[in-house]
Amino acid sequence: MNYKAIDSQDIEYLISVCGKGRVFVGEEINEDFAHDELGGIERLPEVMVEAVSTEEVSKIMKYAFDHHIPVTPRGQGTGLVGGSVAIHGGIMLNLTKMNKILELDEENLTLTVEPGVLLMEISKFVEAHDLFYPPDPGEKSATIAGNINTNAGGMRAVKYGVTRDYVRGLEIVLPNGEVMEVGGKIVKNSSGYSLKDMIVGSEGTLAIVTKAVLKLLPLPKKAISLLIPFPDLAMAIETVPKIIKSKTIPTAVEFMESAAILAAEEFLGMKFPDKSSDAYLLLTFDGNSKEEIERAYDKVAHICLDSGALDVLISNTQERQESIWKARGAFLEAIKASTTEMDECDVVVPRNKVADFIKYTNELQSQFQVRIKSFGHAGDGNLHVYVLRDERTEEEWKKTLGDVFECMYSRARELGGQVSGEHGIGYAKRPFLIESMGENGMQLLKNIKLAFDPKNILNPGKVC
Amino acid sequence: MNYKAIDSQDIEYLISVCGKGRVFVGEEINEDFAHDELGGIERLPEVMVEAVSTEEVSKIMKYAFDHHIPVTPRGQGTGLVGGSVAIHGGIMLNLTKMNKILELDEENLTLTVEPGVLLMEISKFVEAHDLFYPPDPGEKSATIAGNINTNAGGMRAVKYGVTRDYVRGLEIVLPNGEVMEVGGKIVKNSSGYSLKDMIVGSEGTLAIVTKAVLKLLPLPKKAISLLIPFPDLAMAIETVPKIIKSKTIPTAVEFMESAAILAAEEFLGMKFPDKSSDAYLLLTFDGNSKEEIERAYDKVAHICLDSGALDVLISNTQERQESIWKARGAFLEAIKASTTEMDECDVVVPRNKVADFIKYTNELQSQFQVRIKSFGHAGDGNLHVYVLRDERTEEEWKKTLGDVFECMYSRARELGGQVSGEHGIGYAKRPFLIESMGENGMQLLKNIKLAFDPKNILNPGKVC
Repeated sequence: MNYKAIDSQDIEYLISVCGKGRVFVGEEINEDFAHDELGGIERLPEVMVEAVSTEEVSKIMKYAFDHHIPVTPRGQGTGLVGGSVAIHGGIMLNLTKMNKILELDEENLTLTVEPGVLLMEISKFVEAHDLFYPPDPGEKSATIAGNINTNAGGMRAVKYGVTRDYVRGLEIVLPNGEVMEVGGKIVKNSSGYSLKDMIVGSEGTLAIVTKAVLKLLPLPKKAISLLIPFPDLAMAIETVPKIIKSKTIPTAVEFMESAAILAAEEFLGMKFPDKSSDAYLLLTFDGNSKEEIERAYDKVAHICLDSGALDVLISNTQERQESIWKARGAFLEAIKASTTEMDECDVVVPRNKVADFIKYTNELQSQFQVRIKSFGHAGDGNLHVYVLRDERTEEEWKKTLGDVFECMYSRARELGGQVSGEHGIGYAKRPFLIESMGENGMQLLKNIKLAFDPKNILNPGKVC
Repeated sequence: MNYKAIDSQDIEYLISVCGKGRVFVGEEINEDFAHDELGGIERLPEVMVEAVSTEEVSKIMKYAFDHHIPVTPRGQGTGLVGGSVAIHGGIMLNLTKMNKILELDEENLTLTVEPGVLLMEISKFVEAHDLFYPPDPGEKSATIAGNINTNAGGMRAVKYGVTRDYVRGLEIVLPNGEVMEVGGKIVKNSSGYSLKDMIVGSEGTLAIVTKAVLKLLPLPKKAISLLIPFPDLAMAIETVPKIIKSKTIPTAVEFMESAAILAAEEFLGMKFPDKSSDAYLLLTFDGNSKEEIERAYDKVAHICLDSGALDVLISNTQERQESIWKARGAFLEAIKASTTEMDECDVVVPRNKVADFIKYTNELQSQFQVRIKSFGHAGDGNLHVYVLRDERTEEEWKKTLGDVFECMYSRARELGGQVSGEHGIGYAKRPFLIESMGENGMQLLKNIKLAFDPKNILNPGKVC
């Protein structure tokens, strides 16, 4: 693609909009902005701008549109697929300074926030008002706009759904700089195609989110976690469809292997309540009464024991629950720290196919003599499977990773799954999206991209 | 638009696909197919075809695409905005014969259905398996694909959300005849733009739904309804934000005036438990334990009494609940039967603005000397406001309706609302969507339409 290179006049314009202190060029740009959390895909933008208002975002987009300059929106850079890397150079539009919580509306149960507010700030803020923002991805330092752009799911999707379900309205800036509101503080909407739902999960390729109206729920009064050891992972995972079928809906159902727990313990320097077994299910139940929760977990505990669980450990203290969930939250970091490089497969399959898929990744481990670590959301079918480079040469790594990914994504398709459950396509997973959607499907995505962004300047080279 | 007129060759082709018994021309087409439930917008298609398989739909679309013939998909025709009327003639594609429930998957909590399955059949089927499909629009004889295409909401949106939230996957036929699957039996999905969410609410203008995978929940074990009389409607409606703010989530919160109740009684020939007051809130609570429900409704009953409610009538027998909800379900029909013609405004506003809006419609009633009846979903801000023609001449009616609608939609915009909460835009509400979205917004919708349907043959003239 033939984009205009940034020159001194462009820099001058950006400084005229944002002031000198928020425009960074060349060596002023921290190397961190060349890649995301996972790394692997690297390029520094030509200029990085910190916007603090919708008006600034609008002016910058209009200028970029008129001058055919690529713009990469960026939050905290916690992504894993290169979605926030400026692979065509140009302008990186850093939105982390737009980080104000604007309004809590208790009569409509909505929270209005700027795009750079962090997930952990949202939960802290609303919980202090006895309210609840259910989406709960492991990475709490992500921005809300990053979560919206990947339609992040997290642990509680089993009961509460994903980010999409909690976005009521958005203020967006289109690639040509126009500001638009889609949705609002409303519960229902059938007024034309759902632009709101088109933006959610679009990975910053269709418009820039400058404000979000989030749906809140009353905070459940009680929650309890069960840690359930199993002799092996297959047995643990095969229990999950039985739980779903039992018509009891846990808040979260995670699976983990002892290796991941040990790595997390080492990484965090803290102890997990139990690690004597090979595999675990970790469940949470929430609700408003002790009896309600007890009835649910009692039923599920029996299903697990009948299916071969070795024990059922109940964590009803805040402290104990935190230690378990903190370990769960650290799996990614811990696995990353255990190897030289890694890449992730974030497939989602129907819930009763998780066991098949994990069994298959174990076969691949032997077949390709590569370490594959996985953990994930057994309750919603979304797996995070990590292929580890270890001591491979660059060439060997590329080859092995390509072969293993090819096998995994192809099996996911056979099982009725999709390429990404919550981390998105970004740059890294495009080949697998193409295989999954076919050429005609990809053409449709491209047509939609052009409907929003006729000059292809907004986060080009991502998704499609 | 310059579409090809249907000729004998086209009829021959359609017969070759569907057989003679399912292709109807001229007087063979029942006059009902010229309009929808509300009427007002009328035109018969040139040919009406009953498809029974995805393959047939695909062949018909490919032919229509190649020959530039407009196609109007049609379910039960229960819409209110002309969305299923063949305003450009051409082919009406009747999908009501594709009416099989294909699969209940209890391990993934999904139900796979053909597009023509009726809402009432779905609830009956899943409830027999102790499962629950929450969306609950008043019109139970609508098809599921009709509900998907308008993103129907219904009574239970307060607690459970709308149709969009219960569509996991779709099989669609694109305007060029290509068959595509979007989403699936999966809980999360971040694999490219959400085509599934683009189709939901698109009113048959982007693709034809030929199969749907619906999300189910366990059936709540108990439900209870409260009928709460108030001295006037304003007082009733102003209580609703207080209920929302109390962090108790009812399943449904409807408001109604005694006039609507009397009309429904007459229409149904059955008695409502109470009609001595001017206005009512009707609430439902559901859950799995009596205590849980009692705690919730006790709290809400007190809020209502503190806000001026005259009484709280509890309906805990199946029979009594049915009589109330049956009356609620008959409001539309009853109002319709009370006048010569009517049109509907289906706005949605933030929940704490409902009282403002209803007060305003009362002012319009005096200002324009016209009967305006309303009922609706106070708990989710979606109002159904009916302007009645009564004895006006055609010319007077057009003028009054236009003026009153102009006022109402403009006020809804001021209140942060949208044109349609659940009935869609269709043909009738396009002018108001244009006012709401602006020219640039409409251009974006048109671009999206062309991304799916470059020849503009699928349900042309609707939405945008």
